[in-house]
Amino acid sequence: MYPSWKKYAAEFIGTLVLVLIGCGSAATAGGELGYLGIAFAFGLSIVAMAYVIGPISGCHINPAVSLAMLIRRKMSGKEFIGYVIAQTAGAVAGSVLLYAIIHSTGLPVTGLGQNGFGEGYGIGITAGMAFIVEIVLTFIFIYVILGVTSDSANSHVAGLVIGLSLVLVHILGIGLTGTSVNPARSFGPAILLGGEALAELWVFIVAPLIGAVMAAIVYRLLNVGKDA
Amino acid sequence: MYPSWKKYAAEFIGTLVLVLIGCGSAATAGGELGYLGIAFAFGLSIVAMAYVIGPISGCHINPAVSLAMLIRRKMSGKEFIGYVIAQTAGAVAGSVLLYAIIHSTGLPVTGLGQNGFGEGYGIGITAGMAFIVEIVLTFIFIYVILGVTSDSANSHVAGLVIGLSLVLVHILGIGLTGTSVNPARSFGPAILLGGEALAELWVFIVAPLIGAVMAAIVYRLLNVGKDA
Amino acid sequence: MYPSWKKYAAEFIGTLVLVLIGCGSAATAGGELGYLGIAFAFGLSIVAMAYVIGPISGCHINPAVSLAMLIRRKMSGKEFIGYVIAQTAGAVAGSVLLYAIIHSTGLPVTGLGQNGFGEGYGIGITAGMAFIVEIVLTFIFIYVILGVTSDSANSHVAGLVIGLSLVLVHILGIGLTGTSVNPARSFGPAILLGGEALAELWVFIVAPLIGAVMAAIVYRLLNVGKDA
Amino acid sequence: MYPSWKKYAAEFIGTLVLVLIGCGSAATAGGELGYLGIAFAFGLSIVAMAYVIGPISGCHINPAVSLAMLIRRKMSGKEFIGYVIAQTAGAVAGSVLLYAIIHSTGLPVTGLGQNGFGEGYGIGITAGMAFIVEIVLTFIFIYVILGVTSDSANSHVAGLVIGLSLVLVHILGIGLTGTSVNPARSFGPAILLGGEALAELWVFIVAPLIGAVMAAIVYRLLNVGKDA
Repeated sequence: MYPSWKKYAAEFIGTLVLVLIGCGSAATAGGELGYLGIAFAFGLSIVAMAYVIGPISGCHINPAVSLAMLIRRKMSGKEFIGYVIAQTAGAVAGSVLLYAIIHSTGLPVTGLGQNGFGEGYGIGITAGMAFIVEIVLTFIFIYVILGVTSDSANSHVAGLVIGLSLVLVHILGIGLTGTSVNPARSFGPAILLGGEALAELWVFIVAPLIGAVMAAIVYRLLNVGKDA
Repeated sequence: MYPSWKKYAAEFIGTLVLVLIGCGSAATAGGELGYLGIAFAFGLSIVAMAYVIGPISGCHINPAVSLAMLIRRKMSGKEFIGYVIAQTAGAVAGSVLLYAIIHSTGLPVTGLGQNGFGEGYGIGITAGMAFIVEIVLTFIFIYVILGVTSDSANSHVAGLVIGLSLVLVHILGIGLTGTSVNPARSFGPAILLGGEALAELWVFIVAPLIGAVMAAIVYRLLNVGKDA
Repeated sequence: MYPSWKKYAAEFIGTLVLVLIGCGSAATAGGELGYLGIAFAFGLSIVAMAYVIGPISGCHINPAVSLAMLIRRKMSGKEFIGYVIAQTAGAVAGSVLLYAIIHSTGLPVTGLGQNGFGEGYGIGITAGMAFIVEIVLTFIFIYVILGVTSDSANSHVAGLVIGLSLVLVHILGIGLTGTSVNPARSFGPAILLGGEALAELWVFIVAPLIGAVMAAIVYRLLNVGKDA
Repeated sequence: MYPSWKKYAAEFIGTLVLVLIGCGSAATAGGELGYLGIAFAFGLSIVAMAYVIGPISGCHINPAVSLAMLIRRKMSGKEFIGYVIAQTAGAVAGSVLLYAIIHSTGLPVTGLGQNGFGEGYGIGITAGMAFIVEIVLTFIFIYVILGVTSDSANSHVAGLVIGLSLVLVHILGIGLTGTSVNPARSFGPAILLGGEALAELWVFIVAPLIGAVMAAIVYRLLNVGKDA
């Protein structure tokens, strides 16, 4: 059992990496990478971090994941709050570093990989549909996490599977909402950019949390109780 | 042993995810993703679902896979029918959700990732060749499934291998038929779109089922009976 | 121990799949897939086949791999000949099927994913350099195979690793020689196309075999004899 | 325990492969591969080499990795020097081979996958920012290595995870500095090209080494001492 401060430090680092590389690749090289490349940037952040901070904190690096773990009673309420603060701080730190990188080119910083919807963002779905999309994608992502981590025999491949599942939800979601499924990941760029990103932030906080709750419920309903 | 209703619910969810993300990425972001990105959308759906609904239902999410399992006596005829109904319902639900997403942009819904052939679809192969292609690709996909799931020592990587095999058959097949290898995956978009997709649907129901039977036969012939 | 005819049948199927999907994706969708997509087509053919025909024949599906196994005394000379015949027949069958697919579009069949070099092929390296490139790439590929298959603890991931190594040598090699590293894979398209592909075929037969011998030598020299 | 000369030979081969395929794909087919393809070229070099030279030398193929291992007392100072010489020689050999390949086309050799920054390289970040980026990316890469190799239960997937982590840091870094995170990888192309690449080389030697030290410190601080 690692002490709490190590867990929080681990979550800070992991979320920083996710935002720096995930959002950073979208913001600095989206055209060269294509949607698939950006999707791998986010997903492989999980793969990488899972095997180094996973043993310390579980590598949630996402308040929605922590919420699902809280509901599944894998962590205490106090620890949950610590995780969310660390994740949010890490996301902001990653966004600041990304801002500094782009700023050093002398060009104006117009994007930091922020999420969004409506005209001018992706294919232009509505706010309501973005809300639904984020619920569904978060449900998928967290349902997989709950499944693969429940069987200790999968422990060596769990990081790979979870990372590839994040690739998956990004492949569809980038063109719709940019794919949040993670309130901290959305908070970082939005708080720095302000404007539209900040105005739309609530969608990317509330919807992923609803998706997390739904994943925990469906997991409890279907996967638990083999002989029910 | 999970109760039947849980298996059917799991197959419903899994097929919904496959169609929503696989067909959805082709329909909403095909150009940005390229063929490889679309192929990963389908394949990683399997990777993700295998580790969460796999323990419940086996994660067939494909009537052709269920048919091969029925032939290999891994499931009863009654269960087979339940699986196929659940898969078909999941595929339709995924297509409806995809329809709603595209519809919310205000643009007309001209495609839902439907399969096809002939002039104007991919490189324009004939109906007969599409039939053969679907048999061959389904044979490859299901032959791999039968192989990798037969050795319990592979259980932790089986989901990865099966998913990557679905990526594989999509890499070639997207430009030919869009790659069905799964009657439910073809049924969903076709039933909503009607027209050509519906008229050509029979190919993507019959050919994958033939490919599944052939895979089961070849597997029985070659892989079973080490000392024959 | 499987009977020899099953091993030959397995090698036939595996090489057919490799050529059909690998060469087929290059010939029918090279532009849409890009080099990375084509590389995955070849590599994932190995991943898929390794887990279904691997237990039968070892999934060489490549005469150069079989030669390395012969040198390492993992197979008899008689079996080696059977393997090479089966692989060559499978490659030709895959090429014929690919020919038929393209032919069914009504367009002339100008390419079947054949290897090559010189002006008009990739970046236009010389014959001599193509020879060296094929030796080096085959050396890399087969050295990895010898390494990863030598430790039974890796058996569950060996197929993944070998497939990803084939992706690797394709990423560099597609723009140079198209990447053979496999005499059978080159023979299939060349025998059907004739002309330049056939005239240059000797490079893609001799160089991979030399690379295989070198891999076996280096493996023997470095990897065997921990306490030497 | 393998004798030292075998370890050095293994590191020579591994670094040669990394530079030949990683830098080579950037230099000869960057446009066709895109950033994601180049990232996979570097990362899959690690995946491939890990399973064949890993058992001999640990597959560092990177002086920064060796430095971290030296700090973690996994190797002696004498061995460290031998590793670095072997890695540097391998990187130069890989660059020479790459030079010869491009030269054989008759075109001038204008690039060998060298790292860089400033106007005309990627998005044009400053030298100071390039220094920071290389520290951060190397920190991420080596922190993952220290984590995944510390648990012997992960030994079968460690090569995959480390390779995918190198893909990760390349996805972001290619457009910034070309991603070094490896002094030997930068030395090879720079020594052959001279000019700007050579003038900027110090960044790609010093920054990765600092990143390695930081990774070792953070690893010691967070990951070691579960019950502290």
